[in-house]
Amino acid sequence: MKGFNIALVGATGAVGQQMLKTLEERDFPIKELTLLSSERSAGTKVIFKDNEYTVQKAEPDSFNGVDIALFSAGGSVSKLLAPEAAKRGAIVVDNTSAFRMDPEVPLVVPEVNEQDLFNQKGIIANPNCSTIQMVVTLEPIRKKYGLSKVIVSTYQAVSGAGAAAIDELHTQTQAILNGDDFTPSVLPVKGDEKHYQIAFNAIPQIDKFEDNGFTFEEMKMINETKKIMHMPNLSVAATCVRLPVVTGHSESVYIEVEDENVTVQDIRNLLEEAPGITLQDKPEEQLYPMPAHSVGLNDVFVGRIRQDLDNKKGFHLWIVSDNLLKGAAWNSVQIAETLTKLGIVK
Amino acid sequence: MKGFNIALVGATGAVGQQMLKTLEERDFPIKELTLLSSERSAGTKVIFKDNEYTVQKAEPDSFNGVDIALFSAGGSVSKLLAPEAAKRGAIVVDNTSAFRMDPEVPLVVPEVNEQDLFNQKGIIANPNCSTIQMVVTLEPIRKKYGLSKVIVSTYQAVSGAGAAAIDELHTQTQAILNGDDFTPSVLPVKGDEKHYQIAFNAIPQIDKFEDNGFTFEEMKMINETKKIMHMPNLSVAATCVRLPVVTGHSESVYIEVEDENVTVQDIRNLLEEAPGITLQDKPEEQLYPMPAHSVGLNDVFVGRIRQDLDNKKGFHLWIVSDNLLKGAAWNSVQIAETLTKLGIVK
Repeated sequence: MKGFNIALVGATGAVGQQMLKTLEERDFPIKELTLLSSERSAGTKVIFKDNEYTVQKAEPDSFNGVDIALFSAGGSVSKLLAPEAAKRGAIVVDNTSAFRMDPEVPLVVPEVNEQDLFNQKGIIANPNCSTIQMVVTLEPIRKKYGLSKVIVSTYQAVSGAGAAAIDELHTQTQAILNGDDFTPSVLPVKGDEKHYQIAFNAIPQIDKFEDNGFTFEEMKMINETKKIMHMPNLSVAATCVRLPVVTGHSESVYIEVEDENVTVQDIRNLLEEAPGITLQDKPEEQLYPMPAHSVGLNDVFVGRIRQDLDNKKGFHLWIVSDNLLKGAAWNSVQIAETLTKLGIVK
Repeated sequence: MKGFNIALVGATGAVGQQMLKTLEERDFPIKELTLLSSERSAGTKVIFKDNEYTVQKAEPDSFNGVDIALFSAGGSVSKLLAPEAAKRGAIVVDNTSAFRMDPEVPLVVPEVNEQDLFNQKGIIANPNCSTIQMVVTLEPIRKKYGLSKVIVSTYQAVSGAGAAAIDELHTQTQAILNGDDFTPSVLPVKGDEKHYQIAFNAIPQIDKFEDNGFTFEEMKMINETKKIMHMPNLSVAATCVRLPVVTGHSESVYIEVEDENVTVQDIRNLLEEAPGITLQDKPEEQLYPMPAHSVGLNDVFVGRIRQDLDNKKGFHLWIVSDNLLKGAAWNSVQIAETLTKLGIVK
């Protein structure tokens, strides 16, 4: 079996570590593995398949001879180095938002639009975590019953905001249980002006605000969903909320289909057979998805499927997935696998 | 100033204690206060305005001479004793779900439908906590711009499930931080078969499931909203989710108004002047409502008001309130105040 030369930029970060774990679990055929990072983390030792690797500082020439370069080191690193990697013949799978809305860059969730990979010009974007789990669920429904409207309210875990946010949740929670004082300094957005308590709270801000009153995270869900599903006119709205959950994003999603004669059982049957989805929908047994039960699993979990009581084309769903896996590391590695499966990387 | 004879059933519970605090803070004109409970809690000593009261076992004759009886001791106690209290001339304000959908019983949020109090026949129902904060916000919008559709996803605190649920959240959170084992035994629903982790999790079940796949909590929001707002044909859908938050319910609400020419600023101006509401909506200053900032306050907090990007009649709102106050104790005491204001209790 042929192996590929793989580079990973951001090898020491939370998602980078998950990518390594996923490459290992999937037994991805690697000939040579190059682990890269910013100057700050260069020199760190990392174990992969029982071998020790030293993380090197990412530079343009780091990508010479690389087949696939996985990027997860922040948007500014991607903007600088992804074109350099592509120029040197690597195909970049970028987990940041840097290129997602670039019309030249395919934005790919393999279960939904793997064919878009054929349009790649050296850079492929991995969508936002909260978008991925939603489109995996919506695509089979759109295909069979049509789709005209989506309204989503999210329940998002702090690990989406990185290791510092996880630390803040843990430290702050302990402080509150002890009755101690604390000063929020990371959430909701590290680079924004004000920081708020996340422990035992819910913060309706993820990423910064746009002029239209939506946050950038909400606009990502809206715009990325339309792009991935090739539905520029789909009506999509999002409200994104950060919760005191470490890992696992949940979504309360209302959709309207075009077919007038769809039942809850039809949608259950459809999603039961759909790729990448585990149906957990037996209210009579209190079976429904929850973030705590999604951690460490690659699938998207769907349940609480109900027909709207006023609109027979309306349905409500509850969608949960591990935001570090299908929302990031697993979807990126899955894109890499699909590139080899489709013969785009040989 | 005339004083009233007040009885409080469930004086030792979480909401009962809040009711006493609220009666004290509002300086409600009380001539005689009778504190009642189940047999189990009878004998407990309670301080009210520097006087010690002994809680007595609630019996039919406990209500002789009582003007207003506040009930918050569970549905079965209300079903048994509220009619007995009414028979003896008391007006009952019942905080349980026992009589809410009874066509003979007004379901009242004073900011919305205080006139319904004139139709009382001895029992008045206090709505479900998550319903109250939503209708306080929707009523001024309906009145000025019309209202045709409501889709709500809730983010609900554990205190709505009682003191045992608060204990479970705290104990379980500490166990997880310590890396210890734990066995859930209260949430999502004490009387249901399975119990799940609430700490660092989100549970999409509040109350038991109905045959249509909605939970009883969701159906309460749907049916109570229509009844309180006198809109039997309003389209309402709800998804109710329990969070690791102690106090303060949040709601992501999508509405459609009838007027075609409403702006976000119109709705802000309207809600700024509306009774019982504090507007917190300055995204440019990261000002929006959060449960941690609502605790101990009577108002309903509204922010994140956005016009839908695809439907100019569609708006998104984020509504937060202390579920033990406006959601329970304060709304009940406010009904009592309104009964005296309107001269229904003299």
